[in-house]
Amino acid sequence: MRATRLHGPGDVRVDSVPDAALADPTDAVVRVDAAAVCGTDLGFYRGHAPTAPGQRMGHEFVGTVVETGADVTGVRPGDRVIVPFNASDGTCDYCVQGLPISCRNLQVWGMTPGIDGGQGEAVRVPFADGTLVPIPAGTSEQMLPALLALTDVMCTGHHAAISAGVRTGAEVAILGDGAVGLCAVLAARRLGAERIIVFSTHEDRAAVAKQFGATDFVSARDQAAVDGLLHLTQGRGVHHVLECVGTEQSWATALGVVRDGGTIGWVGTPATTGPTLPSLLMRNLTLTGGVAPVRAYLPQLLGDVLSGALDPSPVFTMVTDLDGIAGAYREMDSRTTLKALVKP
Amino acid sequence: MRATRLHGPGDVRVDSVPDAALADPTDAVVRVDAAAVCGTDLGFYRGHAPTAPGQRMGHEFVGTVVETGADVTGVRPGDRVIVPFNASDGTCDYCVQGLPISCRNLQVWGMTPGIDGGQGEAVRVPFADGTLVPIPAGTSEQMLPALLALTDVMCTGHHAAISAGVRTGAEVAILGDGAVGLCAVLAARRLGAERIIVFSTHEDRAAVAKQFGATDFVSARDQAAVDGLLHLTQGRGVHHVLECVGTEQSWATALGVVRDGGTIGWVGTPATTGPTLPSLLMRNLTLTGGVAPVRAYLPQLLGDVLSGALDPSPVFTMVTDLDGIAGAYREMDSRTTLKALVKP
Repeated sequence: MRATRLHGPGDVRVDSVPDAALADPTDAVVRVDAAAVCGTDLGFYRGHAPTAPGQRMGHEFVGTVVETGADVTGVRPGDRVIVPFNASDGTCDYCVQGLPISCRNLQVWGMTPGIDGGQGEAVRVPFADGTLVPIPAGTSEQMLPALLALTDVMCTGHHAAISAGVRTGAEVAILGDGAVGLCAVLAARRLGAERIIVFSTHEDRAAVAKQFGATDFVSARDQAAVDGLLHLTQGRGVHHVLECVGTEQSWATALGVVRDGGTIGWVGTPATTGPTLPSLLMRNLTLTGGVAPVRAYLPQLLGDVLSGALDPSPVFTMVTDLDGIAGAYREMDSRTTLKALVKP
Repeated sequence: MRATRLHGPGDVRVDSVPDAALADPTDAVVRVDAAAVCGTDLGFYRGHAPTAPGQRMGHEFVGTVVETGADVTGVRPGDRVIVPFNASDGTCDYCVQGLPISCRNLQVWGMTPGIDGGQGEAVRVPFADGTLVPIPAGTSEQMLPALLALTDVMCTGHHAAISAGVRTGAEVAILGDGAVGLCAVLAARRLGAERIIVFSTHEDRAAVAKQFGATDFVSARDQAAVDGLLHLTQGRGVHHVLECVGTEQSWATALGVVRDGGTIGWVGTPATTGPTLPSLLMRNLTLTGGVAPVRAYLPQLLGDVLSGALDPSPVFTMVTDLDGIAGAYREMDSRTTLKALVKP
C-alpha cells in the first residue's frame, strides 16, 4: 500500500509499504477515508522533534473498517469509524477512569514504532474495541471534515477549555490561532463563555475565530498583546486562559493576562520549560492540561457534530490526495494554508 | 514596646522599638496575646531568604484590639481577634472575589517595610475591617493555641487540600510533616478523605499525624518513599497530593506518587523551580496552590474550631515568652520542637 513517510526535515514522500494487516485478535484494519496534517506533524517536518528514519506520518484520520480480528466485537467491516490520535485498550485503570491518553498500552499512529501512520491508504488499529468510535450508518459524506477534526484538534481545544474550567458566563483568553486554538474558541463558546478574546495577527484566522464565536481580538504580540487584553478588561485580566501554542512567548502572554487565582489550561506542545514555582507562589495560578484524552471526549462531541450543534470543519482550508501531501506540508509550513485534509 | 527583630542569620533579639500606634483612620492597634514561630520565619533565620537589616519577625498572632481609627466599624477595643498573616483591604476586586492574598493593598506582618511583626507586644493593623476576624466574647482561653494555628498553618494546610480537590472518599498523599503538613492531614480528614498517607521519618510527628487522621505512613525518602507509596496503593499512586515542603526532593516524591490526571496542591514555599511543562505534557497533571488566602478561609474554619470539630492545637509543642524567643528559634531550627507559641 502507499503511505507517507518522513525521510528528514522537509522531506515527506509517499512510499510503498507493507499492507496493513491484522496481527492480534483485538486488531482491526481500517481503510483511511480522510486524514489530516497536524501541527505536531509540522514539528517533525521542521526538525523540531526527533523522528525515526522513514517515520510513518499522520495521526488524524477517519476511515472504514475492512477487517477485524477474532476478538473484536464493537465494530464490523463496513463501519465508518473515527480514530482518536492514539490507540488505547479501553480496559486498563486509566481508560476506565476516563484518561485513555494514559492507557497502559498507549500507541500513537506513526510515532509508536511498528504502528502505521494515518496519512496512508490503511492502518492496523490495535485494541479496536477500545479505540474506534463508529459513526452511525447514513451519516452524510459532507460531515467528513467535521468528523476528522474530532480525531485531534477539536478534542484538544475542548481539553484546553475543560481543563481551564470554562463555564457559562466565563471570560476567556485564547493563545493560538491555529486549528487547535480555533477549536478552543468553539469549545469555549459551547461551554457557555460570554467573552472569548483571541490573540491573532492573521486576518484570515481571526475571521474563522469570529465565525466560531470569538467576541474580541488582540492583534499584537509580546507586551503589546498583554496590554491589549488588559485594556479590553479594564486591567482585570481573565480568569481562564487557553494556551494552545507552547512557546516561551505565548506562555509569557498567558501569564501576563491571567488574573491571580486563575487557570491556564494548556495543550500547546511545550517548546519552553514554563513558569517556575516561585513565580507562581503569590499568584495562586493553576496550570492544568496536557495531551487530550480524545477517546473520552468523542462520544459527547460526536453527538454535537452529528446534531449540527458543533462544526469545526472550517479549520480545513485545503483538500488534496496522497500525491499532493508534500505540497500540503509546504503550504502549512509557510502558513499559506491553515490545515490540510488528505483523501488517500 | 518590645518586639523581635532579626539581625542576621541565627541572630534574633528582642529589641525596644517605637510603640505600635494608629497612623490611618482604617488602622487598629492590637495587643499580641499569642504569637507563633513559622517555618517561613525559620527560612529567614537560616539565611535562606533575604531580610531587611533588623527586620521585624512574626506573622502569626492572635490579640486584643486596644485602639481603633475613626473609620473602623468592624471591631472595638477589647475585642479578641484572629489576625491572618497578611493585611488585606477587604474591598478590592481580589478581596471581594475571595482571594485576599492578592489584595491590591496586601501587607505582610514583619515583611512589608514599616509593618510591625507579630512576635512583639503590639501591632498596628492596617485595614482593620478587612483584615481582623473577631472571636466571640467568652471564648475559652484554652482555645488560644487552636485559634493561633488558624492565622497561617491550619489555613495553609486547608488551602493545599482545597486546591488539590480533596473530597469524600479521596485517597491523599501528604508531603511534609511540619505544622503545615500536619494541618493538611486535619484538612484532608475534614474534607472526607478516606485514606491519608503521610511521609514522615520522625516518630513524634507521625504520632501527631495519626492523631489528626492519617491512615498510612511511609517512613522513607527519595525513591524508597515513592516505592513505599506505590506499594501501599497496588502501584496506582494517588490522585491528590498535598505538597507542603517545597524542596526538589519533595517535588520529586510528589511527581512520583501522583497518578496521571491527578492534582498536586502545593503550599510549600518553593526552593526549586519545579517540574517543566514537557515533563507534565503526557501526564495531564494539575499544579495548583500557592500562598493561602487565609482571610477567606477563616470564617468557616473558625466556626469548626469553636464548635470543637477542628483542633490544630497539637502543632504547638512549646510555649515561651518574648525572652525565650531566641531559644524557640533554636529548638525549631534543630527540630527539637515542632512549633513554638510565644506569649509576649
